[in-house]
Amino acid sequence: MSAAPQVDSPNYQPPTWDAIREAHVRIAPRIHRTPVLTSHSLNAIAGAQFFFKCDNFQKTGSFKIRGAANAILSLTDAEAAHGIVTPSSGNHGAAVACAAAWRGVPSYIVMPKNAPAVKCRAVESYGGHITFSEPTITSRQETSARVQAETGAILIHPYDNDRIITGQATAAKELLEEVPDLDAVFAPVSGGGLLSGTCVSAKAIRSDIRVFGCEPARADDAYRSLASGILQSLDSSDTIADGLRASLAPRTFAILRRHLDRVLLVTEEEIIGSMRLVWERMKIIIEPSSAVAIAPLLRSGAVAALNLPGRPDGALPKLGIIFSGGNVDFSSLPF
Amino acid sequence: MSAAPQVDSPNYQPPTWDAIREAHVRIAPRIHRTPVLTSHSLNAIAGAQFFFKCDNFQKTGSFKIRGAANAILSLTDAEAAHGIVTPSSGNHGAAVACAAAWRGVPSYIVMPKNAPAVKCRAVESYGGHITFSEPTITSRQETSARVQAETGAILIHPYDNDRIITGQATAAKELLEEVPDLDAVFAPVSGGGLLSGTCVSAKAIRSDIRVFGCEPARADDAYRSLASGILQSLDSSDTIADGLRASLAPRTFAILRRHLDRVLLVTEEEIIGSMRLVWERMKIIIEPSSAVAIAPLLRSGAVAALNLPGRPDGALPKLGIIFSGGNVDFSSLPF
Repeated sequence: MSAAPQVDSPNYQPPTWDAIREAHVRIAPRIHRTPVLTSHSLNAIAGAQFFFKCDNFQKTGSFKIRGAANAILSLTDAEAAHGIVTPSSGNHGAAVACAAAWRGVPSYIVMPKNAPAVKCRAVESYGGHITFSEPTITSRQETSARVQAETGAILIHPYDNDRIITGQATAAKELLEEVPDLDAVFAPVSGGGLLSGTCVSAKAIRSDIRVFGCEPARADDAYRSLASGILQSLDSSDTIADGLRASLAPRTFAILRRHLDRVLLVTEEEIIGSMRLVWERMKIIIEPSSAVAIAPLLRSGAVAALNLPGRPDGALPKLGIIFSGGNVDFSSLPF
Repeated sequence: MSAAPQVDSPNYQPPTWDAIREAHVRIAPRIHRTPVLTSHSLNAIAGAQFFFKCDNFQKTGSFKIRGAANAILSLTDAEAAHGIVTPSSGNHGAAVACAAAWRGVPSYIVMPKNAPAVKCRAVESYGGHITFSEPTITSRQETSARVQAETGAILIHPYDNDRIITGQATAAKELLEEVPDLDAVFAPVSGGGLLSGTCVSAKAIRSDIRVFGCEPARADDAYRSLASGILQSLDSSDTIADGLRASLAPRTFAILRRHLDRVLLVTEEEIIGSMRLVWERMKIIIEPSSAVAIAPLLRSGAVAALNLPGRPDGALPKLGIIFSGGNVDFSSLPF
């Protein structure tokens, strides 16, 4: 069974601000309120005032626990009884396994066979049962359907699900509660759960704030979908940002079309260089997907090219960056 | 010229608590008050309550700026006029270069030619002038003396200097201000500046606290010096903990003999495994020298073997760990 109704894009009503506040109340006792860090060194490089929302320090090592906890804690006992099944390249899988364990029900995670070993171990450490699929979206969907049929578990889609989106939206909510006068917020985009939640939260709190999605050029379906107005898919991708290999879905596409200012594309070299720079200067571990959110701002002149309205105080723009996770396979670093 | 008087070990009076408080007032406006972090995951592995003083987030990437700032800001204008010379394997050199720049005077750093490239770049980024020596203490001393003669700069020894020791002592002071009821504190030991400062601070604040030094077995001069009662030297060492290749000096030896509870030795494999574990679980970058301070506590049964007195609340022992730095050469990681 699947609780998700079919989305008719033009008539789809995105999650409300009230739903995000309810989600936050539901999950706050279980998750970390992650710190917002700053870096003089990165500010000087980019000519901006950065505020990094560090969900690399979040439980399970990524923001994904926000949505998974909200979705799983919202289920009725009957819905949850046979457990949860979900396809995931890693972080969502660990989050579902963790939240299912909190709920006391089994979890079945369908992972592509090229998922990093560290992400597989994480799923197992929370008691999740892994089934491997080919690294294509088609294979993942077929495998998920088979596991669902065998177990009777409920499918929780990693992002085409309103409760997932409202959960992910709490990261930007916390960031703006801490730094209310941000000029813009930047988040990585893959399936779009984090980015669409960020849009709804940020624009509910401050209607004139800019929200940018950051995407690997090698997995540019969001860029192409928003440019063409037609949902594009990406059957496979080999970007180093292993958390960003999925494609937008009807819900997230609908929200991004309405609210997103722009998608910024980055090369693999920019992702790797940005990750290394953050490790060196901030002394924190971020995974490649997190680096995608700052990579487009480290090019010479990039912040000026955003054409943000000037600040009333005449200071450098205040930019919020969501670091989505910190789960890195140290055995296969790109440097 | 050198301001350091000869130390007669039995009659040497270690820095006082008042001197540490004065040092803290002197340097606090310039340095970060670094966070004290916790980790459920590492607590569960060791059976302890850990409190990590994160000087990997300190300015210049290590605790060394505490001592360097205190020593250099304490100089008279005449003493500072021709600049500062110091031998350093890296972090002290960067700290001296940074503090000399604050003071507006030149700095001359004598580094072993096998120092990590990232540490050389750091010295240069603060405007320090590097002279390379052979990687032996004899060569470093000879080279330092030559540079001192050529420039007229004042020599600031990396640890055999009371103002360096009082500066380094502020890390433990901050840790105990935040967590006053620690049962024990653990710090890495090389020349002993950090560890001897930690002893003086910790025991001034709580006379019954235990202080342990953690040392690579491949650079075990502190262990041998304290066991034999005679200052041992180590002309060279090849431990991966590149910040811990120096030997105790008269001042630090005198303080450790009086105050240190024990030296705990660790293997290279334990250092590497502990560093990786902290990166994976805490998502922070620590350098190998920092990992040395937790490595001896991650062996099975290690915390119980410390024979700490039980806590009045019956809880697991509260252990303070000083993470000394976070400057890692990502081009030559051991994993």
